Amino acid sequence: MKTAHFILIFCLLALASPFAYASDPSPLQDFCVAINDPKDAVFVNGKFCKDPKLARAQYFYYSGLNIPRNTSNPVGSTVTPVNVAQIPGLNTLGISLVRIDYAPNVVVEGTLYVGFVTSNTDNRLITKVLYPGDVFVFPIGLIHFQFNVGKTNAVAFAALSSQNPGVITVANAVFGSNPPINPDVLVKAFQLDKNVVKNLQSKFWWANN
Amino acid sequence: MKTAHFILIFCLLALASPFAYASDPSPLQDFCVAINDPKDAVFVNGKFCKDPKLARAQYFYYSGLNIPRNTSNPVGSTVTPVNVAQIPGLNTLGISLVRIDYAPNVVVEGTLYVGFVTSNTDNRLITKVLYPGDVFVFPIGLIHFQFNVGKTNAVAFAALSSQNPGVITVANAVFGSNPPINPDVLVKAFQLDKNVVKNLQSKFWWANN
Amino acid sequence: MKTAHFILIFCLLALASPFAYASDPSPLQDFCVAINDPKDAVFVNGKFCKDPKLARAQYFYYSGLNIPRNTSNPVGSTVTPVNVAQIPGLNTLGISLVRIDYAPNVVVEGTLYVGFVTSNTDNRLITKVLYPGDVFVFPIGLIHFQFNVGKTNAVAFAALSSQNPGVITVANAVFGSNPPINPDVLVKAFQLDKNVVKNLQSKFWWANN
Amino acid sequence: MKTAHFILIFCLLALASPFAYASDPSPLQDFCVAINDPKDAVFVNGKFCKDPKLARAQYFYYSGLNIPRNTSNPVGSTVTPVNVAQIPGLNTLGISLVRIDYAPNVVVEGTLYVGFVTSNTDNRLITKVLYPGDVFVFPIGLIHFQFNVGKTNAVAFAALSSQNPGVITVANAVFGSNPPINPDVLVKAFQLDKNVVKNLQSKFWWANN
Amino acid sequence: MKTAHFILIFCLLALASPFAYASDPSPLQDFCVAINDPKDAVFVNGKFCKDPKLARAQYFYYSGLNIPRNTSNPVGSTVTPVNVAQIPGLNTLGISLVRIDYAPNVVVEGTLYVGFVTSNTDNRLITKVLYPGDVFVFPIGLIHFQFNVGKTNAVAFAALSSQNPGVITVANAVFGSNPPINPDVLVKAFQLDKNVVKNLQSKFWWANN
Amino acid sequence: MKTAHFILIFCLLALASPFAYASDPSPLQDFCVAINDPKDAVFVNGKFCKDPKLARAQYFYYSGLNIPRNTSNPVGSTVTPVNVAQIPGLNTLGISLVRIDYAPNVVVEGTLYVGFVTSNTDNRLITKVLYPGDVFVFPIGLIHFQFNVGKTNAVAFAALSSQNPGVITVANAVFGSNPPINPDVLVKAFQLDKNVVKNLQSKFWWANN
Repeated sequence: MKTAHFILIFCLLALASPFAYASDPSPLQDFCVAINDPKDAVFVNGKFCKDPKLARAQYFYYSGLNIPRNTSNPVGSTVTPVNVAQIPGLNTLGISLVRIDYAPNVVVEGTLYVGFVTSNTDNRLITKVLYPGDVFVFPIGLIHFQFNVGKTNAVAFAALSSQNPGVITVANAVFGSNPPINPDVLVKAFQLDKNVVKNLQSKFWWANN
Repeated sequence: MKTAHFILIFCLLALASPFAYASDPSPLQDFCVAINDPKDAVFVNGKFCKDPKLARAQYFYYSGLNIPRNTSNPVGSTVTPVNVAQIPGLNTLGISLVRIDYAPNVVVEGTLYVGFVTSNTDNRLITKVLYPGDVFVFPIGLIHFQFNVGKTNAVAFAALSSQNPGVITVANAVFGSNPPINPDVLVKAFQLDKNVVKNLQSKFWWANN
Repeated sequence: MKTAHFILIFCLLALASPFAYASDPSPLQDFCVAINDPKDAVFVNGKFCKDPKLARAQYFYYSGLNIPRNTSNPVGSTVTPVNVAQIPGLNTLGISLVRIDYAPNVVVEGTLYVGFVTSNTDNRLITKVLYPGDVFVFPIGLIHFQFNVGKTNAVAFAALSSQNPGVITVANAVFGSNPPINPDVLVKAFQLDKNVVKNLQSKFWWANN
Repeated sequence: MKTAHFILIFCLLALASPFAYASDPSPLQDFCVAINDPKDAVFVNGKFCKDPKLARAQYFYYSGLNIPRNTSNPVGSTVTPVNVAQIPGLNTLGISLVRIDYAPNVVVEGTLYVGFVTSNTDNRLITKVLYPGDVFVFPIGLIHFQFNVGKTNAVAFAALSSQNPGVITVANAVFGSNPPINPDVLVKAFQLDKNVVKNLQSKFWWANN
Repeated sequence: MKTAHFILIFCLLALASPFAYASDPSPLQDFCVAINDPKDAVFVNGKFCKDPKLARAQYFYYSGLNIPRNTSNPVGSTVTPVNVAQIPGLNTLGISLVRIDYAPNVVVEGTLYVGFVTSNTDNRLITKVLYPGDVFVFPIGLIHFQFNVGKTNAVAFAALSSQNPGVITVANAVFGSNPPINPDVLVKAFQLDKNVVKNLQSKFWWANN
Repeated sequence: MKTAHFILIFCLLALASPFAYASDPSPLQDFCVAINDPKDAVFVNGKFCKDPKLARAQYFYYSGLNIPRNTSNPVGSTVTPVNVAQIPGLNTLGISLVRIDYAPNVVVEGTLYVGFVTSNTDNRLITKVLYPGDVFVFPIGLIHFQFNVGKTNAVAFAALSSQNPGVITVANAVFGSNPPINPDVLVKAFQLDKNVVKNLQSKFWWANN
């Protein structure tokens, strides 16, 4: 039986094509353990805090990140976030964690093929094939990808510079939004045939419905 | 002759699908007029400054934003940035400006159809048709679009919350990177046929070459 | 009939002598649409947010910025702010917009005479006469002015690097405060005759009463 | 002989009417001792740093703040700043100090009469008479004043939330800029007679010349 | 009778070994006067604000910092904080103040012996003996100390770059925590005999009980 | 043979007692790959950047974090940092990584005993015993510890919210500084016998010499 190789990808933004939006503020107390949003639909930027006197070790704790996740879905990967929703003690601390399991894509020998594209100045592609023990950085806000080019499952852990990174999978956002974007817009932006756009929109419907 | 309608789009991120990455620092002096990067290839986060005693009004000034731009290109729009590269006095001030000219797409009566998609939580699409005098906000970091649905040229002015917004046109970055992203990655991510991916990569080659 | 020239002033601080106070934080969610202050007089730094599931396009939208404003008042200009009070979706985004209409002051041919003064190091004055299509930057926190030196109305649009810029018109704050500042203080600070100070305080009484 | 009373004014902004502009960044090293600007007129936002291995206690040290200053000048007060120019170790630390000596104005019994005016929303004046041992806070960016209403000299120490606060004395900036602001602008803004404006501009000429 | 010398220590972090944690955000309003935490145990990062219309001078004011404090306790010094708990108007302003009274330690002639240690790179010690009128800066986050080496009481005033500095007295936190840290951990970390550790833990019990 | 258990500690601050100091700024470019400090001893807050056109994948990459480290030293643990010194592409990104190997301390069955102490308000101790797959958060700036209570080696990976976290091992800084702190200061602060202090100072001499 083949076992998943362990890789520590040290990225600032996690999934297939995520875009987190920047620096969280510093805390003004020792900590500010998040509470769930109150019933009466009032929210703040970030989260309300518990009474600090009620802080317990469990609010700073999460368990089970070593358990492999199921990757049998259309994109062949599963993201397990560990952010302020899982660890309320992360509130105001500006950092979070993610485990990503990749199904093999059986292309060539090796492990994880990763890369990112610089912004409109030159849209340069920078890539690397990663092996166990490797670390890679995705600069914040740039489109990037990770692709398991090995024959076995792969797993990566990523640290993110936000307590609640706003992850965006480009394909899902563009073709799977709810309701769908007017196909004429996508035909123009992606220079695709209208039928291809409509077909894509029906395929990505699974993502959010 | 039909003239372009004037619209003031008040967006945080400018082009077809741009992603700027967040809050710039506050200045520690009255101002810090940018100088061009020095010959010996040493850079800082942001820009070096001129001697403040040499500050002149022209470093805080730009002219000609009222002149219509040519929109005859594949995507039918032209972006004229006014950022720290055009106004060196913007250095450290965390704000910039953009003029966008849109060719008409002759679909329905009206002017500019704009929208943005929320992040992976639900990928919800929020849209609006804009008329002259309207203002619209694109929350920072979210995928968004602007589409001229009128019969005439349109023009919009946008303010951006960065002195040097890292704009990313999604289609260009994904299909037009240099060198191209391995098509297998895009086949998986976008669920497109490999021939469609290769065709798109050849089309967007113009963007960066 | 003479029509108002259109000028795009790109300033960080808007009115006759405004002082906004610095960098707003980055958002921790996709967006945080502001709600009005709750009845029970509890406030936060910034604003509380609506339930994100209730976000609608109208919260990111403002209409009518193309309509000229009336400028018949003692200072001959009118400021129309478009900030978090008008567009609740601006909350946490750190940017806002303003339209300023100027009555003509019929001095010389031209359009808008603008300038700012550096801080106490040397109190240097930096000025420029602006024409349609021109852009000018006022560095944040410095005293500045705009003066319509043309024969017709003028209009300017300004982008501000705060969602809720704390605008201060120097003359109003100094001579029109409520209650008035002790005249002895102003006599000393401005080296004015006590009768002139008292006269000014009576004139600026209109500003806040 | 009457001795000066000691008052600890704890203000964020120091002189007669200063406006500092906001939050300095956090340091990325243990410290970053400032060096003087290099000969070749290249500057950064803030200051360049010395080699950290060359840090000495003297770079974090200033002496003589207990010595009374001479207050015989037109405005009757003297400000002794202790910022990054005096203590290079303050670079990147976002805080500084100031000593202010006030000549007596012999008005009523008491010590220091201080106040600030809120921004344009209502231009409300908030004041207090301070006695030895009192502490007062001026919210950042608001116009404020301090006035010695006692019969003896007074001294105050102030902490400022910037390593290099951009202090602006309103009267100096408005009437003493170099070159002077066009009197027509000031006539309009302050509703003063043109002769009064010209007289004031000649009086404040001392400030920067 | 011997009187206490007055010293103005200008430090970023206050007590025997305090560690404050960094930059507070800028305010989004003129001010945001703190209110006490509401009954129902909901908190925010920082503090809720009062209705700004109810702002009074007393919220920006503190009295009595000139009164000497009693220093007869085991560590021979007393810290009087003046932060957001004492002056609610400090909320969101990122600065606070402290008075420290030191009992004499009768070692050598002189006044206050201060120092700090750089981080793990080289743990270098930087020290200075301070006299009346001296100012000294402790870089944020570094372990530091102040020790009265004179024969009389001493007093210092310190400005801190946080509205609510999270002060940590190292000895109290390490040996006086509640409940105590497992002695085996401290034996290993400090290379102390287990009996010495247990003895220290009993001595520092006073600090928090 | 017993193998080391794998634990993912998700902490903001890394070693036995580290104190990192706070929020790094957001980048103003796509990235700012660090260069080594220039010969002429001029530094900036953070690091200078390479010409962005020369960016290569290797600047965002680090290899070998999966290799166990030797833990035979007095404190029984080894920290392997992966910060801006190892990955120059981390410059301006505000995040870094660390691998910690712990020798077993053979106390009880289990794995890693961790905890932190709140600041001076109550110096409360919050602890947890961690097992493979567990995640724990140390709030920034608080004194904390990790102790291998198992019979085998343990390894943890930690993400830190700074590109260059200023780590401070309390015992090393207090007793191993160079030159040593005056023993009288430590006798007073830690209530230790002078001989114990001198003995500790000789023991910790290894740390920095």
